[in-house]
Amino acid sequence: MTAQHPGEDRRGHAQFDSDSDPLTAAPLIAGVELGGTKCVCILARGPDDIVAERRIATTDPATTLGAIEAALDGWRDQGFAALGIASFGPVSLDRDAPDYGHITATPKPGWRDADVAGRLARRYGVPTGFHTDVTGAALGEGRWGAAQGLADYAYVTVGTGVGVGMIARGVPLDGMTHAELGHIRPARMPGDDWPGTCSFHGDCVEGLVSGPAIAARTGRPAPDLDPDAPAWAPVVHTLGQLLHTLTLTGVPRRIVMGGGVMTGNPQLLPRLRAALGESLAGYVQTRELADLDSYVVPAALGSNAGPLGAVVLGLQALGKQ
Amino acid sequence: MTAQHPGEDRRGHAQFDSDSDPLTAAPLIAGVELGGTKCVCILARGPDDIVAERRIATTDPATTLGAIEAALDGWRDQGFAALGIASFGPVSLDRDAPDYGHITATPKPGWRDADVAGRLARRYGVPTGFHTDVTGAALGEGRWGAAQGLADYAYVTVGTGVGVGMIARGVPLDGMTHAELGHIRPARMPGDDWPGTCSFHGDCVEGLVSGPAIAARTGRPAPDLDPDAPAWAPVVHTLGQLLHTLTLTGVPRRIVMGGGVMTGNPQLLPRLRAALGESLAGYVQTRELADLDSYVVPAALGSNAGPLGAVVLGLQALGKQ
Repeated sequence: MTAQHPGEDRRGHAQFDSDSDPLTAAPLIAGVELGGTKCVCILARGPDDIVAERRIATTDPATTLGAIEAALDGWRDQGFAALGIASFGPVSLDRDAPDYGHITATPKPGWRDADVAGRLARRYGVPTGFHTDVTGAALGEGRWGAAQGLADYAYVTVGTGVGVGMIARGVPLDGMTHAELGHIRPARMPGDDWPGTCSFHGDCVEGLVSGPAIAARTGRPAPDLDPDAPAWAPVVHTLGQLLHTLTLTGVPRRIVMGGGVMTGNPQLLPRLRAALGESLAGYVQTRELADLDSYVVPAALGSNAGPLGAVVLGLQALGKQ
Repeated sequence: MTAQHPGEDRRGHAQFDSDSDPLTAAPLIAGVELGGTKCVCILARGPDDIVAERRIATTDPATTLGAIEAALDGWRDQGFAALGIASFGPVSLDRDAPDYGHITATPKPGWRDADVAGRLARRYGVPTGFHTDVTGAALGEGRWGAAQGLADYAYVTVGTGVGVGMIARGVPLDGMTHAELGHIRPARMPGDDWPGTCSFHGDCVEGLVSGPAIAARTGRPAPDLDPDAPAWAPVVHTLGQLLHTLTLTGVPRRIVMGGGVMTGNPQLLPRLRAALGESLAGYVQTRELADLDSYVVPAALGSNAGPLGAVVLGLQALGKQ
């Protein structure tokens, strides 16, 4: 996951010349969250020490990556020890593949096969971490948010889409590729046969509970829906199935729920915990599951989770040197 | 996962006094597969170098573990460098919990809260690996069977129950506990509402496709069922859903299918590949998924996978010293 090229420009690689106490200072990291509509670049040591931040509209790759580079170029003199990139997907994480670090089969015009991590790693010559935006947010929540102190946890975002970031032993869980568990096909709520909106799967989790799916089903945007509306019942059932599956992977000691649909509807959380407990039916018994209030929790970092997660990806790349 | 007690009896810890060439000899490992009906202990360097083997009926813990110890005691003079234990579950894998290495909430009489790994690790004073029997079989298939050369893969057994072993970066994937993905609730085949046999979940994967579930649905044991019987259709659909979910974890670069229902019905394999492809609907595109014949494959080690997997658990414990 690191990509360092010692022979290249190393001006960005000056992690210990900060003005603060060198014995306690965390390294300065450049983080890039590459989103579908906007990108956020930050230069930070953590949420309480954000040195600089730049927001960039996501347009075509050449323009967008050029603007990101302009931001990072301006930070070279301050020195960043590593770079982390959390990108919209799908992305290639296969270190043995020629397209490692690329965005792959996205429907987003112009971005298919765009090289992101290789291009930026070569330019700055610092250890570079790369993963999905959802995994980035998961790492941010683990380092500074709702999953602090845990090495094994999951982060679920329910918004325009449904994404899952899985962290195992402190690092992103991947292998062939990154998790895409928002697209599992759940058991349906009895009596509900609404076909869903996913263009690939119809009634997968994303096709049933994303913001656009809720809007398509109810005819009104999710934020306008009454908290007691009957349309929440299949949303709760479906997300309960996603939580059931995540729990049975055996990995998460906590599941953090974020994204617009969750943050806009805090009444969902207790219902999700109940749905999970009912669905598991006592099958797995652990200390963590004995208290579902602390097993399924709301995200803590809000929209900062993404760029801060990119900083963690940079920190992890630095640690692998 | 290791448990070494240097002050104790170290007679078992003599990995390099083998008669074979010390430069090429693999270490001699004691492996114990603790099954629900029988246990298999082997002393081996690998499938081609099994020095000794002992089969023991699983009765109550005192009798069974005593017999296992009698077998291992007899192998002390030959020296084994490490011990691996692959046990029926559920087991506690939480290294911070007082019940680490125990069998936990099993319905099997007498075995609830039985200490397995701690007891054997203390007795033999060698590095000791411990995991589920399914994970053990997965490791065996990875080292010597159908997933050789891969660091990220899954093993599915479809037999008396349905178990999933997940291997990520060469080691068992766990966190809060081990995978229990045989108990996810799948999308049902359209028109099928048979309630399933799982005492916890009804129509989870295990409740729909285990050998006993097939027998309950059809009124005849799975091995007697015609290969073209209509009852296979919901089995294929359900296992296709399990494969869909496993694929979307992002981990496996291959999925190995074993267990009695699979080995007795080789005609299922091409149907499962087709069901997986249809369900994914092109959503994830990787080199591995481009060839489903090599993505979903039959197990290669048969009933030897379990005890050989225990040997791998021992090897991994040795490697962690």
